[in-house]
Amino acid sequence: MEHIRHLGIVGLGLLGSSILRAVKSNYPHIHLHLFDGSRQVCHEVEALGLAPRCAGSLAELHECDLVVVCVPTGAVATVVIALAEGMKRGAVLTDVGSAKQMVINEVGDRLPAHVSFVPGHPMAGGEQSGPGAGREDLFAGKSCLLIPLATTPTSAIERVEGFWRALGAVTCRVDARQHDHIAALTSHLPHLIAFSLMETFGDQLAINPQTGSFIGRSFFEQIRLASSDVTVWTSIFEDNTAALLSQTEHFIEVLNQWCAILQERPVELHGKISHSSVLANRLLGRVV
Amino acid sequence: MEHIRHLGIVGLGLLGSSILRAVKSNYPHIHLHLFDGSRQVCHEVEALGLAPRCAGSLAELHECDLVVVCVPTGAVATVVIALAEGMKRGAVLTDVGSAKQMVINEVGDRLPAHVSFVPGHPMAGGEQSGPGAGREDLFAGKSCLLIPLATTPTSAIERVEGFWRALGAVTCRVDARQHDHIAALTSHLPHLIAFSLMETFGDQLAINPQTGSFIGRSFFEQIRLASSDVTVWTSIFEDNTAALLSQTEHFIEVLNQWCAILQERPVELHGKISHSSVLANRLLGRVV
Repeated sequence: MEHIRHLGIVGLGLLGSSILRAVKSNYPHIHLHLFDGSRQVCHEVEALGLAPRCAGSLAELHECDLVVVCVPTGAVATVVIALAEGMKRGAVLTDVGSAKQMVINEVGDRLPAHVSFVPGHPMAGGEQSGPGAGREDLFAGKSCLLIPLATTPTSAIERVEGFWRALGAVTCRVDARQHDHIAALTSHLPHLIAFSLMETFGDQLAINPQTGSFIGRSFFEQIRLASSDVTVWTSIFEDNTAALLSQTEHFIEVLNQWCAILQERPVELHGKISHSSVLANRLLGRVV
Repeated sequence: MEHIRHLGIVGLGLLGSSILRAVKSNYPHIHLHLFDGSRQVCHEVEALGLAPRCAGSLAELHECDLVVVCVPTGAVATVVIALAEGMKRGAVLTDVGSAKQMVINEVGDRLPAHVSFVPGHPMAGGEQSGPGAGREDLFAGKSCLLIPLATTPTSAIERVEGFWRALGAVTCRVDARQHDHIAALTSHLPHLIAFSLMETFGDQLAINPQTGSFIGRSFFEQIRLASSDVTVWTSIFEDNTAALLSQTEHFIEVLNQWCAILQERPVELHGKISHSSVLANRLLGRVV
């Protein structure tokens, strides 16, 4: 955090307010400059005692060394471009969006030379939204992916890396195309699965009300993501369509193979389940 | 528990040992008769201090008022038939398997008249297995579905209901065909999804090792079920194939609709996500 005396946070929902909480607690000497487009969110932040006041406009963030943009992915480019012009020389902008290639394309060469933009994506969140849902330790031990462009100055990348590490995250630099493809698998597809499972359950519930007696922990766990913020996820699905489609199609193929095995070659079930179980136990850190 | 002085438990894994723990703690006057086909499991139960000894054969359970059969679904019918002949008059047998129609067909009219069988299915479990994974409170507040046949005496059904209620579960009577169809959706399909997502992740990991940096809480949560016991789940998939296939095919259809909307009608995304989100929030008990 050594290069950051003035920190800006734009968007004070789950992620933005978690950053706010973490910085307030652990780096009280840093001056915070907060902005949210929604007056109601600003009032909530003030009512929660997280900040005395929010800025009235983006222009008020001009003296920040780093601004973290925490708005839905579809709005990131607009905010970054709007902010950049007024920022002081050497300022760095970053974001927390789940889809990167589109933002990079939209920002393109539209930033002034005295400001840098380092797209980012902390692998942290939750299905709850709004400033009240934020948690000081949300980023502790989580991966934060950074997607710098070839033209991004090293000092700017390092400032953003230093920021996330100070919040306890483990940073990792990746390529935008790769990022979008893998995030589609590990984050966007799980949400699409939860939405689809919820829909399938709704169809069944309409036929048979007893369906409600059949819900165990495993089912609740697998539909939890379906209760996520609608605006945020509409934006992510719109902004990472190609990669999400490709991963969903691959997943459907895998499901079709399961159907074929169930129907025609049940003798292969044990091996197939075992393969996934070994992988899952390894990933979950258990002895296999 | 008033009609139960001698309780038998066959199979001392996660579910059997959870029943054992709950009964020992809360109903110490009940005589427990335990059996497991695996010597190693018996040794584990004894080493954990859960019981001084396990029975050497099923025949030793003859004086039980109720026997709960906690073996993989594929073995339930065999155990029930093997047990029944030697049981005292009026004894009741039940099980905890996830698939019911097949067990009911297999048991058929092969039980002697002096014994009743009430198939059951507590909606409780976990991805951990073995006697060490059991928990005294595993059934507290959970649904336990009972699937009595038209010929089952009311007194037998009530004995099994009383047993589960004493362990804190909420009982509910359902029809076997309905049970298998809904359990396929709310329990078996979530497992199949977890296995498939794990497999899809494995495919991606083989192409790009950076995939490992992209794992957030939501992904871990959605693949946890993939680490479940291989034998148990092979048996469930084999024993409830038709219903699981039908639910999986419906789920694939829903996924295909998502793909079509992503590709051709993104304007519908918000409404579609919103529909699932409302349902999920309602189910998870949150204010929408």
